[in-house]
Amino acid sequence: MSPPDAVGIPLRQLAERCGAELSGDGDVLIDRVATLDAADKGAIAFLSNPKYRGRLGSTRASAVIVAPSDASATALPKLIAANPYATYARVAAILHPAHAPTPGVHPSAVIAASAHVSASAAIAAQAVIGERAAIGERAQVGPGTVVGDDCSVGHDCVLHARVVLYAHTRVGARTIIHSGAVIGADGFGMAEEGGRWLKVPQIGRTLIGDDVEIGANTTIDRGAIGDTVIEDDVKLDNQIQIGHNCRIGAHTAIAGCVGIAGSTTIGRNCKIGGAAMISGHLEIVDGTIVSASTGVFDSIQFPGVYTGTFPALPHREWRHVASVTRRLRSIAERLRALERAGHNEET
Amino acid sequence: MSPPDAVGIPLRQLAERCGAELSGDGDVLIDRVATLDAADKGAIAFLSNPKYRGRLGSTRASAVIVAPSDASATALPKLIAANPYATYARVAAILHPAHAPTPGVHPSAVIAASAHVSASAAIAAQAVIGERAAIGERAQVGPGTVVGDDCSVGHDCVLHARVVLYAHTRVGARTIIHSGAVIGADGFGMAEEGGRWLKVPQIGRTLIGDDVEIGANTTIDRGAIGDTVIEDDVKLDNQIQIGHNCRIGAHTAIAGCVGIAGSTTIGRNCKIGGAAMISGHLEIVDGTIVSASTGVFDSIQFPGVYTGTFPALPHREWRHVASVTRRLRSIAERLRALERAGHNEET
Amino acid sequence: MSPPDAVGIPLRQLAERCGAELSGDGDVLIDRVATLDAADKGAIAFLSNPKYRGRLGSTRASAVIVAPSDASATALPKLIAANPYATYARVAAILHPAHAPTPGVHPSAVIAASAHVSASAAIAAQAVIGERAAIGERAQVGPGTVVGDDCSVGHDCVLHARVVLYAHTRVGARTIIHSGAVIGADGFGMAEEGGRWLKVPQIGRTLIGDDVEIGANTTIDRGAIGDTVIEDDVKLDNQIQIGHNCRIGAHTAIAGCVGIAGSTTIGRNCKIGGAAMISGHLEIVDGTIVSASTGVFDSIQFPGVYTGTFPALPHREWRHVASVTRRLRSIAERLRALERAGHNEET
Repeated sequence: MSPPDAVGIPLRQLAERCGAELSGDGDVLIDRVATLDAADKGAIAFLSNPKYRGRLGSTRASAVIVAPSDASATALPKLIAANPYATYARVAAILHPAHAPTPGVHPSAVIAASAHVSASAAIAAQAVIGERAAIGERAQVGPGTVVGDDCSVGHDCVLHARVVLYAHTRVGARTIIHSGAVIGADGFGMAEEGGRWLKVPQIGRTLIGDDVEIGANTTIDRGAIGDTVIEDDVKLDNQIQIGHNCRIGAHTAIAGCVGIAGSTTIGRNCKIGGAAMISGHLEIVDGTIVSASTGVFDSIQFPGVYTGTFPALPHREWRHVASVTRRLRSIAERLRALERAGHNEET
Repeated sequence: MSPPDAVGIPLRQLAERCGAELSGDGDVLIDRVATLDAADKGAIAFLSNPKYRGRLGSTRASAVIVAPSDASATALPKLIAANPYATYARVAAILHPAHAPTPGVHPSAVIAASAHVSASAAIAAQAVIGERAAIGERAQVGPGTVVGDDCSVGHDCVLHARVVLYAHTRVGARTIIHSGAVIGADGFGMAEEGGRWLKVPQIGRTLIGDDVEIGANTTIDRGAIGDTVIEDDVKLDNQIQIGHNCRIGAHTAIAGCVGIAGSTTIGRNCKIGGAAMISGHLEIVDGTIVSASTGVFDSIQFPGVYTGTFPALPHREWRHVASVTRRLRSIAERLRALERAGHNEET
Repeated sequence: MSPPDAVGIPLRQLAERCGAELSGDGDVLIDRVATLDAADKGAIAFLSNPKYRGRLGSTRASAVIVAPSDASATALPKLIAANPYATYARVAAILHPAHAPTPGVHPSAVIAASAHVSASAAIAAQAVIGERAAIGERAQVGPGTVVGDDCSVGHDCVLHARVVLYAHTRVGARTIIHSGAVIGADGFGMAEEGGRWLKVPQIGRTLIGDDVEIGANTTIDRGAIGDTVIEDDVKLDNQIQIGHNCRIGAHTAIAGCVGIAGSTTIGRNCKIGGAAMISGHLEIVDGTIVSASTGVFDSIQFPGVYTGTFPALPHREWRHVASVTRRLRSIAERLRALERAGHNEET
């Protein structure tokens, strides 16, 4: 990963392109990003988490990205920015641009006659594009990805390998969908009748906004009657399940392994921690934060942080705690009896 | 979604085909289903959840499906049925029939020479059918789906895009498997020896019954020695994991993100809520209901509803609650000490 | 499953090949493994779990595998081994060898011009191998599997159908990856800026060791800057999510549905139960055991068994318990008040 020669981008130029303040030698050449610990000549590192401040003194990076409050803590050439992590993201995107495949359709891909694929799009090997589907400008469809009939994929989208879009799915511009994600499968709808199940046709669509990112093996079901909606700039990690007719508000981020049952609406700018589980038919207000591994069984009307996890304990201790937990009703009643007895004594 | 012209099916005909009682104008033309709120001319809506009864008065649907007890609450043309949701399912299936692909094998599909594909089956682009596999009448194999050697897929099955059936998997008739599902992978079996793991060959099969539905990205492992069995009419949502040698009884429905460890038997007509986790080697009796997010670590002998979730709380309050939870053993002991002290005083 | 004729391997030969002690008739022919209950002529069964000891007397197996302490409990021909389950694994591998496909590249596979595929490797239908990728000797790449640019896949690896390796992934020797697994997708990294998200480029790799097994639909993200590392002999079940920059120590086994957030290090020889959830940036010491469904939110410094699950209860009882749980802070305060009152009385 070391530069073959003196290559890279002058720090001054990175400052200009990222809108950060330059401090120190603007001519130092930067060709990659690295952590404070791993960085050496040619690398730029960043300090965002105060926990790692001590590493600023020992890093061998050629430059660093820091907040104004940390600027005096290092004599290295630096970019000073109010949000060092965001500046790092911009610098990394400049130094490590994503590989853009050559436009065109791989000969092994199967494109329906009535599909419209933009000339600037890149359709990889073994991909399948259905009837009347539309693929936008510069969009990338990865190897083995299946775009169903009547889907539309916006400009500059990236569908990685082996994504599935069921028929009638709409994906906005600049959205990234990772491998194994399945968008638009039937929701879990069936009517019980005489001890058997009758399938309820799922006829709604899945509408994915602009600037969304959907993680690997995440699933989002189509609406039962109306649509399932993922608004703009929603970020979904891996292995998330979103049921039919959910709506996820703009700018909400959801960590891995989260499940959201059908017909729940999550507001804008929410943050849902990993493995949280949210029941169906709920309303979660804008700006809500749900902690990891927390089950949400009621609507949330007031923004704030909500948590509900059992603490992990050494197993032997947990056995006692679990045993008392099972008897909590009795504990509460006995406590109340004692209080009454005390009160009676006093009176 | 509005009809271009006066098209559709007379309400009278829907009543006859669904076995529902007609009330009001049987000539009104119906061409789609919709929710009470979204419905307008040409649409039929239904009322099943009493929570939405108030919407019956304001809907602009051309007809509604209601229970006998709600029939007098609306003057609209209507279908009256004891189970309005089941009747809705039938009506929706009539008005929105699933798209059946043209029979035949797409030229890009790869079919082993010894496979038997029924002439009425439809094998989509990039699908792979293994040696000696049998595909039943009218079965659909989606794009990129892989049917392993020696598998059998029953009549009228639908395997959506990118399903994988490992070798020797059997799928009954009319079963639907959604994209990304993996049926028959090796179970998690290994012997520990000297701090290392030795793989235990997984040689059982996976047997899927008739009328089963399996959700997107759900995984069902093959048996270790015997078979893993999913009985008839079992309904599995997305992202479920079922370990080797499990047996899931007929008519049981399991919601998304559930995990069931190996060798557990779940009875018939059970309902398992989303993200519930069930340990291995358990027996869950017929008719059991497990609530969402509940961990089941012991066999269940008596049907009923079982729940075990920590309530979600505002984080600050949760911190206190969690802290007391950790000390529950001591709380119980101190309560007992107080009771004894009180008893001693009394005596 | 019955032998067509007297075929099989003499028990004596199995004893020699597995390093087990032979007791009884070494000429009995064995052609398959079975459970104690299901076994009949030609089958060998094993007893490892003392719970099943009673079945030793009634089995119709031709031979059994037992521990020395159980050897006297049956007169059947037998293999005696300190670790009967490990011996069973070896015997099963001999009697039921995995099907090895014919070397070569299926004509429908797409291999980049600059890729290197060993002549002894088997590349199945519809597979895609990227630029500069290297596929080792005797490696198997399943139908529809996508190996990205610059990946390397070691000798004797098995990638089942529809696996995805993102670019720059390295897989060691003899590693098995099951269908639907996605290795090397972008981690969940983004910077918040003015209520919107800015993607942080994920530029690290995913390094998978030797003798690893990765279950169906499991996802492992590439590193953000450094690498995500799965060390040798790690065993991962299905539907596991491992975040960017995690390191999983050698010989650690992780059961299904586990989620591990980014930058967490799990030690060697750990065992993580199904559906356990482990937060990010933690250190879990070697030899730790985490119970199923347990959330781990703090680093673990001492090996041992850790558990944190809410017991499942009949729903009606749970309602009371949950209600008291919500009020635990008040319960603790009231208990303390009673103790103080008692103390005051005494003094």
